[in-house]
Amino acid sequence: MNNSLFTAQHTSNGVVERDFRIGDVSGVLWSPADASPGTPLVLMGHGGGLHKRSPGLVGRARDAVLRDGHAVAAIDAPGHGDRSRSAEDQYWIDDMLAERAAGHSMAATIAAYNSSLAERAVPEWQETLDALLQLPELGADAPVGYSGMTLASAIGIPLVVAESRITAAIFGGVFVYDALTRAARNVTIPIEFLLPLDDPEISRESGLALFEEFASQDKTLHAFPGSHFTVPVERVDTRFFARHLVR
Amino acid sequence: MNNSLFTAQHTSNGVVERDFRIGDVSGVLWSPADASPGTPLVLMGHGGGLHKRSPGLVGRARDAVLRDGHAVAAIDAPGHGDRSRSAEDQYWIDDMLAERAAGHSMAATIAAYNSSLAERAVPEWQETLDALLQLPELGADAPVGYSGMTLASAIGIPLVVAESRITAAIFGGVFVYDALTRAARNVTIPIEFLLPLDDPEISRESGLALFEEFASQDKTLHAFPGSHFTVPVERVDTRFFARHLVR
Repeated sequence: MNNSLFTAQHTSNGVVERDFRIGDVSGVLWSPADASPGTPLVLMGHGGGLHKRSPGLVGRARDAVLRDGHAVAAIDAPGHGDRSRSAEDQYWIDDMLAERAAGHSMAATIAAYNSSLAERAVPEWQETLDALLQLPELGADAPVGYSGMTLASAIGIPLVVAESRITAAIFGGVFVYDALTRAARNVTIPIEFLLPLDDPEISRESGLALFEEFASQDKTLHAFPGSHFTVPVERVDTRFFARHLVR
Repeated sequence: MNNSLFTAQHTSNGVVERDFRIGDVSGVLWSPADASPGTPLVLMGHGGGLHKRSPGLVGRARDAVLRDGHAVAAIDAPGHGDRSRSAEDQYWIDDMLAERAAGHSMAATIAAYNSSLAERAVPEWQETLDALLQLPELGADAPVGYSGMTLASAIGIPLVVAESRITAAIFGGVFVYDALTRAARNVTIPIEFLLPLDDPEISRESGLALFEEFASQDKTLHAFPGSHFTVPVERVDTRFFARHLVR
């Protein structure tokens, strides 16, 4: 047990919320007040420009605790949330904003920036998992899932390839580049893939093509009108983690 | 109340199963043993060549009764199950089998046959609904849904356009022809659409294009590897009717 992991704790409406810090990485763990050893853990990634306490993420995390009895962890991606941003990351972001404003393609910049973030974030998630699975209410054998769209898929797809403790994942709405496609070919765990059909910046064809590449036998695509900002959570909810993260 | 509707009844494991006959049409109603007025009713269509008691349909019907407390009705399509087949229907079927064996396109024959079946089946479903909604455990205000893939979508899509009592529907895996596309443009109720991605006879592109045509604001596509014979029910289950058929 590593109680020194946590820097703050409070409980509201049956959900225990604890802040933690591992090196440079700040995170939050939401868990049931009555969590017992083996409680399934869902790692939730945030989208680009957002952070570990973005309202949508917090809502999904609390639902997972209250409805499924799962624990949920979120960490800030490099240069997001509480974390300082490197000059190089800022350069990429400025570049993307300028490209968007000029109506130019952001493809090369997004590919470079997201790949770099993923390279840094994958080991951070792994260290987070190492630390959290030492908690008595989780434990080394707790089932682990990963969930996240957009930037969180750019990070999560290589993460689930590198990290065999993650046994089920939800991805989607992600800008596709070659390194991501190659990573998808090595994903074999059950996945759900969320595809916004009318995203102004990510084509449905690229999403369908990426879905094809996943090597998973158990994979399902959920598509809906609108953009990645308007995921109809209740309409795509198949109790995926409740089915897959079984103690 | 119209008790003369039913020709047979038995109860097993909490599900009441009653056979009914309305004119030439034979059907089955599954309902909870403790059904009370306003119980939601799901109309379940069967696929081409199948019938009202095909094992997959019976399994889904019993699940809907036991899990959601819904009633479920199925009827045989014209020339299917207990119903005699007209010479013209037999001609179309022979034609399709010959075309398939010769490796020729079945498109024109399927379009003609399915359109004709739909023209006949839509009023049959409406008469069935008239009769069933007179049962005290349902009643005129019972919420009504429709569910069915392949032939059952070819029938169901024009049915939900014609029949305003149906307020939510699940379709999918259907051979697309012009009349069906035109009907889809008039569908405005919430729908789920199931799309097999690797069906040997129905292209994914035609399914995506049909999904686009539905005028429904609330529509979601669920796609999965394999053919329409291998729908992964548990992976696409979003409790659709439990959310939409509210008393």
